[in-house]
Amino acid sequence: MESEKPQNPSPMEPQEEGSNKISKKEAAKLERQRRRQEAAAAAATAVSIVSIEESDPLSGNYGDVELIDLQSKAVTGRKWTEVGSVTPEMKDEVVLIRGRVQTIRPVGKKIAFVVVRERGFTVQCVLTVKLELVSSQMVKYATSLSKESIVDVEGVVTIPEKPITGATQQQVEVQISKLYGVNRAVPTLPINIEDAARSEVEIEQALEKGEQLVRVNQDTRLNFRILDMRTPANQGIFRIQCQVENIFRQFLLSEGFVGIHTPKLIGGSSEGGSAVFRLDYKGQPACLAQSPQLHKQMAICGDFGRVFEVGPVFRAEDSFTHRHLCEFTGLDVEMEIKEHYSEVMDVVDCLFVAMFDSLNENAKGT
Amino acid sequence: MESEKPQNPSPMEPQEEGSNKISKKEAAKLERQRRRQEAAAAAATAVSIVSIEESDPLSGNYGDVELIDLQSKAVTGRKWTEVGSVTPEMKDEVVLIRGRVQTIRPVGKKIAFVVVRERGFTVQCVLTVKLELVSSQMVKYATSLSKESIVDVEGVVTIPEKPITGATQQQVEVQISKLYGVNRAVPTLPINIEDAARSEVEIEQALEKGEQLVRVNQDTRLNFRILDMRTPANQGIFRIQCQVENIFRQFLLSEGFVGIHTPKLIGGSSEGGSAVFRLDYKGQPACLAQSPQLHKQMAICGDFGRVFEVGPVFRAEDSFTHRHLCEFTGLDVEMEIKEHYSEVMDVVDCLFVAMFDSLNENAKGT
Repeated sequence: MESEKPQNPSPMEPQEEGSNKISKKEAAKLERQRRRQEAAAAAATAVSIVSIEESDPLSGNYGDVELIDLQSKAVTGRKWTEVGSVTPEMKDEVVLIRGRVQTIRPVGKKIAFVVVRERGFTVQCVLTVKLELVSSQMVKYATSLSKESIVDVEGVVTIPEKPITGATQQQVEVQISKLYGVNRAVPTLPINIEDAARSEVEIEQALEKGEQLVRVNQDTRLNFRILDMRTPANQGIFRIQCQVENIFRQFLLSEGFVGIHTPKLIGGSSEGGSAVFRLDYKGQPACLAQSPQLHKQMAICGDFGRVFEVGPVFRAEDSFTHRHLCEFTGLDVEMEIKEHYSEVMDVVDCLFVAMFDSLNENAKGT
Repeated sequence: MESEKPQNPSPMEPQEEGSNKISKKEAAKLERQRRRQEAAAAAATAVSIVSIEESDPLSGNYGDVELIDLQSKAVTGRKWTEVGSVTPEMKDEVVLIRGRVQTIRPVGKKIAFVVVRERGFTVQCVLTVKLELVSSQMVKYATSLSKESIVDVEGVVTIPEKPITGATQQQVEVQISKLYGVNRAVPTLPINIEDAARSEVEIEQALEKGEQLVRVNQDTRLNFRILDMRTPANQGIFRIQCQVENIFRQFLLSEGFVGIHTPKLIGGSSEGGSAVFRLDYKGQPACLAQSPQLHKQMAICGDFGRVFEVGPVFRAEDSFTHRHLCEFTGLDVEMEIKEHYSEVMDVVDCLFVAMFDSLNENAKGT
């Protein structure tokens, strides 16, 4: 059964004709629209197009992975190398990496650069037509991949002659020998990760040079949070936040503190002076904890000596700034004093020094 | 100005007389009541009684610390040794410890045993009258201390000839040379810690021998939670819980997971099938998160690869058992799979082994 819907609408005839009133501007607009539709259609059908070209004897080295092959069937024992851990020391090694296609840059019909990103790290992969290794159809397949698609890349680690300035952190290149599409992203994403990754400074510097770069606004970022989270800045924020909590915990544990989790649903407000979220707890009035204060103090009276908690805090104050948070993660500490409040200050002092030292040491690459 | 209220009501006359109807039982009850009041009054005035006996030249070695001396005034540089860290290796060393008086056992007028507890650990301290060191007034002062009072004890670590079976974990004794009351507990506590510390098994074994021991019921424990938390069982539960979380976190961090904190106030229910707490969020309906599921998955789509969260979970189901918790602390893990769900099982497998190994190693003394 053949589909009667033409897969590639003919690019020859403009959609509307016969009226001289259509200005050149409008014609150009229509032309752009048509091209966009064409590109989307081409991307959507690229799989079938490529798979039709069965003439390529190297077709086993690339292509989209079938859905059935993505289901847990067998443990193949293949080892994936993380993009972030591909280093110049791995020169000439064959690696298998899985990541998202950040950018694809074809250079003629025989070479294509594919930047692959995993957990915020990127590596440049190169596809060069070579006899009995890489076919021109494979290069065509690579350029058909939509941005943010997940791919498996197998290739040899090389060190490029010219330093890479574009998208990678490491001075390595992967010479692609195999390229499989694990999951294709929709061709047009609401946010372009490259745009979202751009800082205000970059946008302004470009503007000074007369170049208008796309700025992704806060509301768009929040509406498509999962795309926005893929930017290096957000990857960094979450990872540093995790490290801060970890150092906080490890330092306090080493100082004899006990980590506790106090109730968030409580019978009254935790403390005066701040508004509280109220709710119905099976017929009884309840509040969301504004602070673990009371329960921390109970723990001290209960002979724990030193306690800490990392957990959500709820504050219902109305706010006229965009900096007020009704819900945030609190890092709370409580300790008994032997003879002077300076004991608390000493702990907090050392805690902050430990935090900054550790972040300086471990979070540079984040 | 002298108070006209007698501090010690005369113990001679029963409160009610002249009626023969008062049964012996009632008379005994009244007598018990009177005695209790007397004991409370005596304990409350013990401080002044002791301080009146100024004749003791060794009075500087004991007594209650004045409130003004407990305020942060100066860093004296005194070093306290934790009760849990007093070991036989410290023999003949002078230690200063601060803890709660768990039990006081006078032996005649010249010897008293004081068991001091800190953070669940106990040590037996001995007060023996010695010329120019310990006066009989000091022994009297010690026996006046109410249980659960906080004291500072200075003394020499010794190793007792007979092994200690009573209240201590370590085979050491502290020969008290100085004893100060930092904070006196009320003479009659709603829960006796020794009673609360007793297990069901101990109570039943005693019953078989014909001995009736006090059982502290759940409601009393919950009403006086801070006292109940001082029992070894509860100290252990909280400390092991803290360790479980810590091993969970450290193992997952070492496996490339990122710790996150997801919103607890959300716009709809997290998942079907479980009842949800609803509240008003500034005029908009909101729910308490029943699970971090959605946000964990968003983090995976946001390229974090592997995430975990430790935080509160709210479930509003009605329950007819006492085992249902409307609020609990969830340990949540989410990870992307390369090719088979066994990858998740491998992580969980190693996680549990790491947990139990570490608890076996580190939580024995807890």
